[in-house]
Amino acid sequence: MPITLAIDCMGGDHGPSVTLPAAFQFLREDAQARVVLVGLPAVFDDAFRRAAAEFGDRIVVQEASEVVEMDEAPAVAMRVKKDSSMRVAINLVKSGEAAAAVSAGNTGALMAISRFVLKTLPGIDRPAIATIIPSMKGQTYMLDLGANVDCSAEHLLQFAIMGSLLLEAVEHKASPTVGLLNIGEEDIKGNEVVKKAAELLRASDLNFYGNVEGDDIFKGTTDVVVCDGFVGNVALKSSEGVARMITNFLSQEFKRNLLTKLLALIAMPVLKRFKKRFDPGRFNGAALLGLRGVVVKSHGSANQTAYVWALRRAAEAARNQLVERISARMSGYTAASLESTQEGSAA
Amino acid sequence: MPITLAIDCMGGDHGPSVTLPAAFQFLREDAQARVVLVGLPAVFDDAFRRAAAEFGDRIVVQEASEVVEMDEAPAVAMRVKKDSSMRVAINLVKSGEAAAAVSAGNTGALMAISRFVLKTLPGIDRPAIATIIPSMKGQTYMLDLGANVDCSAEHLLQFAIMGSLLLEAVEHKASPTVGLLNIGEEDIKGNEVVKKAAELLRASDLNFYGNVEGDDIFKGTTDVVVCDGFVGNVALKSSEGVARMITNFLSQEFKRNLLTKLLALIAMPVLKRFKKRFDPGRFNGAALLGLRGVVVKSHGSANQTAYVWALRRAAEAARNQLVERISARMSGYTAASLESTQEGSAA
Repeated sequence: MPITLAIDCMGGDHGPSVTLPAAFQFLREDAQARVVLVGLPAVFDDAFRRAAAEFGDRIVVQEASEVVEMDEAPAVAMRVKKDSSMRVAINLVKSGEAAAAVSAGNTGALMAISRFVLKTLPGIDRPAIATIIPSMKGQTYMLDLGANVDCSAEHLLQFAIMGSLLLEAVEHKASPTVGLLNIGEEDIKGNEVVKKAAELLRASDLNFYGNVEGDDIFKGTTDVVVCDGFVGNVALKSSEGVARMITNFLSQEFKRNLLTKLLALIAMPVLKRFKKRFDPGRFNGAALLGLRGVVVKSHGSANQTAYVWALRRAAEAARNQLVERISARMSGYTAASLESTQEGSAA
Repeated sequence: MPITLAIDCMGGDHGPSVTLPAAFQFLREDAQARVVLVGLPAVFDDAFRRAAAEFGDRIVVQEASEVVEMDEAPAVAMRVKKDSSMRVAINLVKSGEAAAAVSAGNTGALMAISRFVLKTLPGIDRPAIATIIPSMKGQTYMLDLGANVDCSAEHLLQFAIMGSLLLEAVEHKASPTVGLLNIGEEDIKGNEVVKKAAELLRASDLNFYGNVEGDDIFKGTTDVVVCDGFVGNVALKSSEGVARMITNFLSQEFKRNLLTKLLALIAMPVLKRFKKRFDPGRFNGAALLGLRGVVVKSHGSANQTAYVWALRRAAEAARNQLVERISARMSGYTAASLESTQEGSAA
């Protein structure tokens, strides 16, 4: 199925040096795909044009005059830089010229601009970001990682619905299991918001597993783990921190002296396979959910391989009508809750 | 300085098979220490008496008729089992017969019983549990891990004060740095409670570093990391989960075939050093803070070496007057806030 992705070529730590080769690789493997490459005019030089010629009209260039910096305040990026590559890419989704936008830029700015340009779907109070985390069983989708703090139980329910539909659309998994991140498996555990959210989830038509704990994210106990953006951020950053510490310790031990360095060399094939096993690149491509359009955020530090994963996920989400699925399900929920309110007032 | 510890010999996954040899080891290395061993009568058999003879009156046996189960509801353990080994050990702190109690039993029950028997210090709304986490710089003290959910900014300030004083008492570190766990370093980030807590911490006489993120726990950015019990639990469990996943992957890669198994054998000394490097045993012994007595919680799964660490930490906290330090500092805070209230009403 033909699909067009708008790519913010300027975003990320490496900008066009990663995004352009990744776009070429993606076009080579997905014959039905087209891309609109958005960037500063200087990016599209002669070398680029020669390389792009291979793809004919499957590549369209769209110039932008500004770039959102990685550390720029989202509100400033949104209000002041109206011709940023990020904004132009999202405008293309709004106008229907692209089915999805991908950016490795400033997450806060990407969310603010997406929300402002595309708007949220009816029934969604707050868009969320769903990220993919490696687990012992493969991967776990976790949301929110989009800085939604002070969430209500209803927000957590909305995140659960969106996360489930994301898995159905992108991973083709029917009725994915949903876990609610808590501090114990028992129903009585947790804060008030989480207890209320568990009730809403039990009453929903989702495949709700129940409460899960932090280690369940990595055990792969459920397909989706739902939490508020504060807790999600802390869980993710803590996990990254401990992973970095462990690999540092391992590397330090192997570098301790000549003998251990020799051992490292001998054990290299094993260590390489190990490293590959939880290479974050495979899990790149976090979905911004709840908007009237598909937007995928790549890690800022993504290399070409990782960035291609983000492009694949964006194409998959758009082809499988992620937005339409969320919209349809939310309108069902809105209708149902209206009905129950009316029943309540009639009684 | 002479010190007496009350030890709940029944607590933990291994009970007396770990707690008794650990007590002996502790007495051997700390000539000024005495212990009261609390357990079911059957524990103190002939073999025990022969082994204990070495220590003369430095070991006192105190029989208890009940044991709190690891999965027992804290409220039930507290109300029904009035002669549990855990409760008797804490009673000994209350009566002054012991300077500190140590248990590897059910955390919820230990907190509930400690709170009920010992009571909280004036100015402390909620006792907290501070755990020690390995970091790239050595270790980070983190609290709360005691399931205090829905904390206020004032609670977080109290945790920060108690955590600082714990480090001063046990690690002999003057003016330890305190970080507030948040989702970004900027002041504007986070939920309302955390923002307010940052203000209180800035206005306090603590060595407040500012906001820290999940990965800072393992970087060792600050000596103490403060957060509410929900977030702390999720951060800790997530970190344990990812650590387990990584070590599983590593071990799987080394077990993949005959060659890799051989490589594992050759690399064993390095892998062993690596494993030791983040062995949780060294970090065993979480302090229950804010009570009128020293109570230290050992991991349920602690082996003898790990359990001895918990005993050492309990002795250190009691010898360095942890409770008196917290009490003195809190009465200072209470006086100051009373004063500022009076000033406020006078104005």
